[in-house]
Amino acid sequence: MTIPLLELTADGLANSARRIMARCNELARISSLRGGVERVYLSPEHARANRLAAEWMRDVGLTTHQDAAGNQVGRISGRDPEAPALMLGSHLDTVPDAGRFDGILGVLMAIEVVRLLRSRIPTFPFCLEVVAFSDEEGTRFGKALLGSAAVAGSWDPAWWELTDAYGITVRQAFLEFGLDPSRVGEAARRPDELVGYLEAHIEQGPQLDRAGQPLAVVSSIASARRFQITIRGEARHAGGTPYDMRHDALLGASEIAIAVERLCLAEHHLIGTVGQLNAYPGAVNVVPGEARLSLDLRGELEGTRDRVWAALTRELDQIAGRRGLRWEAREVHTASAMVCEPLLMDVMRAGIEGSGQTDPISLFSPAGHDGMAIGRIADIGMLFLRNPDGISHHPDEYVSTEDIAVGLRAFAEAIVHLAREHAR
Amino acid sequence: MTIPLLELTADGLANSARRIMARCNELARISSLRGGVERVYLSPEHARANRLAAEWMRDVGLTTHQDAAGNQVGRISGRDPEAPALMLGSHLDTVPDAGRFDGILGVLMAIEVVRLLRSRIPTFPFCLEVVAFSDEEGTRFGKALLGSAAVAGSWDPAWWELTDAYGITVRQAFLEFGLDPSRVGEAARRPDELVGYLEAHIEQGPQLDRAGQPLAVVSSIASARRFQITIRGEARHAGGTPYDMRHDALLGASEIAIAVERLCLAEHHLIGTVGQLNAYPGAVNVVPGEARLSLDLRGELEGTRDRVWAALTRELDQIAGRRGLRWEAREVHTASAMVCEPLLMDVMRAGIEGSGQTDPISLFSPAGHDGMAIGRIADIGMLFLRNPDGISHHPDEYVSTEDIAVGLRAFAEAIVHLAREHAR
Repeated sequence: MTIPLLELTADGLANSARRIMARCNELARISSLRGGVERVYLSPEHARANRLAAEWMRDVGLTTHQDAAGNQVGRISGRDPEAPALMLGSHLDTVPDAGRFDGILGVLMAIEVVRLLRSRIPTFPFCLEVVAFSDEEGTRFGKALLGSAAVAGSWDPAWWELTDAYGITVRQAFLEFGLDPSRVGEAARRPDELVGYLEAHIEQGPQLDRAGQPLAVVSSIASARRFQITIRGEARHAGGTPYDMRHDALLGASEIAIAVERLCLAEHHLIGTVGQLNAYPGAVNVVPGEARLSLDLRGELEGTRDRVWAALTRELDQIAGRRGLRWEAREVHTASAMVCEPLLMDVMRAGIEGSGQTDPISLFSPAGHDGMAIGRIADIGMLFLRNPDGISHHPDEYVSTEDIAVGLRAFAEAIVHLAREHAR
Repeated sequence: MTIPLLELTADGLANSARRIMARCNELARISSLRGGVERVYLSPEHARANRLAAEWMRDVGLTTHQDAAGNQVGRISGRDPEAPALMLGSHLDTVPDAGRFDGILGVLMAIEVVRLLRSRIPTFPFCLEVVAFSDEEGTRFGKALLGSAAVAGSWDPAWWELTDAYGITVRQAFLEFGLDPSRVGEAARRPDELVGYLEAHIEQGPQLDRAGQPLAVVSSIASARRFQITIRGEARHAGGTPYDMRHDALLGASEIAIAVERLCLAEHHLIGTVGQLNAYPGAVNVVPGEARLSLDLRGELEGTRDRVWAALTRELDQIAGRRGLRWEAREVHTASAMVCEPLLMDVMRAGIEGSGQTDPISLFSPAGHDGMAIGRIADIGMLFLRNPDGISHHPDEYVSTEDIAVGLRAFAEAIVHLAREHAR
């Protein structure tokens, strides 16, 4: 059986894009933050957003259920109702004082793509699922990807005792939400149930805006490592201690902060950020005897990231040797790079070209996404939509209705291309 | 009338030095800090230390009174009881968890010098006064030199409302101590009442220890300027913001901290310290949008100090221009350099040479001293005693009994030299 060509009209796409924009605005009103957007895992707002998303899913013919971890799921069968599914999705939770599109757009585009493809889905060699993940940002419990990790079967029992700002544990929150903690494993999917995972998301950066293009293929989700670095010297009187007797921990920290920038700039697709730096004792007239700094390293490739960290440790040794300092680093977070699957990148590229954009760029994502968790059980592919000025995690976050329309066409075309590949 | 030669015996000097060491230890026990030394302005410990110092003053023939600002004063007449006085002194207050010698040593050496000179003083063309200043460190109210400023007649009425850590004002503390705030002006001395001010003090640095010499002439007390510098950039997501869109305030601050070191090292006798540095918002995954740092510049010469500050402002402009940052600086403290008077330096040098040390080095003092205030109404001269390892403002602060004995001889000889100069 062959997959018929898509015949999407500009008017139809524009209608769908406007519907998505209206729904982004509607979801933004489901918020715990007066005058802003904030919607966290297992909150009353989470329940309301799930109900609304379920309605919209049913409206396009998806059969819905809320899974054992609070993810909202919809499913529609292809040619064989028992065939594995192509999973489409993103998340409905937000950071504090968030924008309206991060995650939300991907869920709504997935639903709308089902509407556009509806008549062709019975010919597909796979089923289609839409998942609105319940926790990607980790805002409430400080641990990201709880919803998608449950789907990936990688729920960690230690998470039950994580607490929110009010001391409520994940376990308590599950019960209050009406979920049974002992059944969280039922949210897990097996690799053989899935043909892959596709997600549309706003770019959380300015590259598409700069390139003057609406869409990009994502090549991978950044690998990351986070360190807390402590540098120790000797706290002494600022007046009486000449330079050659100083062991100034803050100057060592300043040098390493600058080295982070220099070493990352020399690499491709690597970003290092020192977001925290404190000097102790922190008195105007005392040479700092200790400095603590955070380091967030994100790179497209783990090799690059690790090479730069190794180079930084050598710089730290060299700075410490020269200044009479000691240093130590504690790794507080590690995430492997999640590389997008070549075939899924190809169909995304073909989809983008089908939308009229020639020679689309591919971007790696320095920010995390649900695909980092789902990648453990399925191949993943992602589509980025232009985000003017690259502002994200902020009320000014934006994507235009025009770009949503173009993105919808590309997303739908990509799925048709994939169906053709699977039908061969 | 000629001034007879001093005939100090090694035994007599050693006895005096041991007495000073014993008294430093005795004063160290008058402390508000269990297991350490802490004695602040207008505290019960201040009153107890004054009473003890007054006893010791009377023991060597000084007539004592506590002045209107809580300074303990002793006086002994020269040939003419109405003649102006040579003031000797230092302070009895301490920093938190202090050593036993900073300030205290100078007071006790002044008292002991009166004992050594006692038989010659009636021949002197000036009277002798010993002042134990009540507040040099500024520990309690955050403003240094309150005691010596009162003596210099430069008490600022704004100081009445300064508060300590418990919210007690200077005015309340005066009353609780038994002093009348309205009479603080009575502590002020007129320039024509003084022929000069001499102070012995431990060096708060390592230069004498390195030179292998016990004593140095002080050339000047450092000029100082303190600034609070704010650098502003743009706080953005660490993941999504590529380097060429970053305006990282912390990297600007790191560069300027390193520039402070570089520019000061290129000068003679200039020290710059960045003791505080904070990044905002201070999150691991946010590019710092603001950084605040303190700068403490101390130099022998105001010209050097000001030239380096001017160079730093140019560096700040250049860094800000390159990184898209803005900066501003608020000057929070300024102290002129207090240059020691040539004749007083000469008699100190002669005194040191009289103690057997040839070709004494002269040092500028990067730390502040009561002479900064007294210099407004009298010529000043200072003697530094070797401080092994240069550790000060710390329980490990030390000076040897042997060096105290040598210092006593030099101090006494210097006063005799000065008396001869005045008798001409």
